[in-house]
Amino acid sequence: MPIDIPEYATPATNRQVLLTTRPDGIPQPEHFTLAEAAVPKPAENQILIRNIYLSVDPAQRGWASAEANYSQPVPLGGPMRALAVGVVIESRADGFRAGDFLYGFFGWQDYAAVGPEAVLHRATENLPLAAFASLAGINGVTAYLALTRLGRPVEGDTLVVSTAAGSVGSFVGQIGKKHGCRTIGITGDDDKVNRCIETFGYDAAINYKSADVAAELDALAPGGVNVYYDNTGGTILDTVLRRMNVGGRIVQCGTASVASWTPPPTGPRNEREIMTRRLVWSGFVIFDHLNIYAEAVGDLARMWAAGDIAYDTDLSSDIAETPGAIAALYAGENRGKKLIFIG
Amino acid sequence: MPIDIPEYATPATNRQVLLTTRPDGIPQPEHFTLAEAAVPKPAENQILIRNIYLSVDPAQRGWASAEANYSQPVPLGGPMRALAVGVVIESRADGFRAGDFLYGFFGWQDYAAVGPEAVLHRATENLPLAAFASLAGINGVTAYLALTRLGRPVEGDTLVVSTAAGSVGSFVGQIGKKHGCRTIGITGDDDKVNRCIETFGYDAAINYKSADVAAELDALAPGGVNVYYDNTGGTILDTVLRRMNVGGRIVQCGTASVASWTPPPTGPRNEREIMTRRLVWSGFVIFDHLNIYAEAVGDLARMWAAGDIAYDTDLSSDIAETPGAIAALYAGENRGKKLIFIG
Repeated sequence: MPIDIPEYATPATNRQVLLTTRPDGIPQPEHFTLAEAAVPKPAENQILIRNIYLSVDPAQRGWASAEANYSQPVPLGGPMRALAVGVVIESRADGFRAGDFLYGFFGWQDYAAVGPEAVLHRATENLPLAAFASLAGINGVTAYLALTRLGRPVEGDTLVVSTAAGSVGSFVGQIGKKHGCRTIGITGDDDKVNRCIETFGYDAAINYKSADVAAELDALAPGGVNVYYDNTGGTILDTVLRRMNVGGRIVQCGTASVASWTPPPTGPRNEREIMTRRLVWSGFVIFDHLNIYAEAVGDLARMWAAGDIAYDTDLSSDIAETPGAIAALYAGENRGKKLIFIG
Repeated sequence: MPIDIPEYATPATNRQVLLTTRPDGIPQPEHFTLAEAAVPKPAENQILIRNIYLSVDPAQRGWASAEANYSQPVPLGGPMRALAVGVVIESRADGFRAGDFLYGFFGWQDYAAVGPEAVLHRATENLPLAAFASLAGINGVTAYLALTRLGRPVEGDTLVVSTAAGSVGSFVGQIGKKHGCRTIGITGDDDKVNRCIETFGYDAAINYKSADVAAELDALAPGGVNVYYDNTGGTILDTVLRRMNVGGRIVQCGTASVASWTPPPTGPRNEREIMTRRLVWSGFVIFDHLNIYAEAVGDLARMWAAGDIAYDTDLSSDIAETPGAIAALYAGENRGKKLIFIG
């Protein structure tokens, strides 16, 4: 039985943000088209979801790309693949009921009729609803699992994080601090430098656009870097990599600074650094770790309840902002996790 | 009491191969000078060693370099840092006796007076003496530990090895085969291709100088590569890396194909590949693992006794070949582990 949803929140049509042309690099507004369709009917073994928070994630760049990397490209003409927090309006699938709050692949649209495989997590923990697309979303869980399992920080380590004020980096810094690391954030403006230190507890932060990152790192981490959590790739990676200590760990979680991979960009060769510094450089994609997703959310929710971790959302309530939201993310315009509230 | 060494084997002076100018890349004959000095006297807490097999190792390139990587540069004017198998002539150190056979940092010279810290391993296993600078030398132990601990091969994996017929690669292929891998070697001439298959048990081998490595790999490993044991770096690494399967492991053990690191060479950026393929790319230097060296030699000696692993030496008995031996190694001229027999 459908729950009682106020009239204003139940549009009679389904607004959708369609991917209509294939981006070469970062998706721009012109790659999308706003459209309206009929509200879908759930088929047998499907649920009908009313989206509340649409999520904007750096990973969407890869999903929209023609080249399959860890997922198949979003079909042209269909709604953009996106995570969202929504509520079940009608269930024709076992285990789901109207009124269940869910986080999953519900797309950039008002309504989604999906199978259970689209659901990433049930929003059952005692957290604000928006946190399920932030602290408990793929960005928070990525930060937690990639740092602890691949970065393996230990007390006294120096941890450097790129896109340090971002939706992943902001958690990496906080979790690293809890592990006894000295934390240094790299970010793109002075306001974010302040956010890193004031909001996310970094010991220090560098504005890479105005500072000499190499000189700043030499000054801030004279003993070298033990763990580098990289969300940017590019020249920042080149600079930090050459300051890693023997046995250091690099976690590759994103490549936000590299505008296009076609043609393949070049950089300094790293194999000798990897060998002589005995680095471990690992790639992380959250979708390999869905079997421990719920466990990680439980850990993060406990940290939040204990006041050990903060999250920040950058909210909009205009679906028309959505087509430009990925590009804005890569331009560093967001302050906190970018969500479009359409509930 | 000194053991009885035949007269011919006990020169009255100490022939030494001195590093007299600093190489920029691969050490060439002109960087060395053959000289003679008095036979040293062991000081308190030292042992006097008569070298029998002088070892030629790719790592000597790094040791001779001005840039400290994992070791301090060899002092100019001193004997070239080198591993050797020798016999104790006189001991003034606890725990060593005349007649003990040892493997360690005894330098390119007839005699060495060294402290116990120069000794890597006591040649006690039931192996031919030359094997202590080969199968049980840093090359064999490196192959064994780096493959099993960083490469983590499992039954059914496709393992690719560069410098596959070399002093490390030849063991990697054999050990990988014992772990149930399909093994593909990359090497530099057709004779070595044959040695890979006939002597070292590779399932297939590629002559990178005459073949299209990318096309050959696509044909030989249509299902992708799980473990890449890299001794070369450079374009071979670029090619294999882009054929790694999700979750693949790259072991960086050498960079033989890169002639000079000054100025730093460039190549295609790899951070996106590392992330999307979720690779683990690790550097290995044997000197981090000396605490398990003896245990590894025990394992390798048992494999040899069981007929599960073969080793090959490329012997010379002319110390005058030594100054050119590192360059010859990088040129791929050796057939088996290069040793200079001066006993």
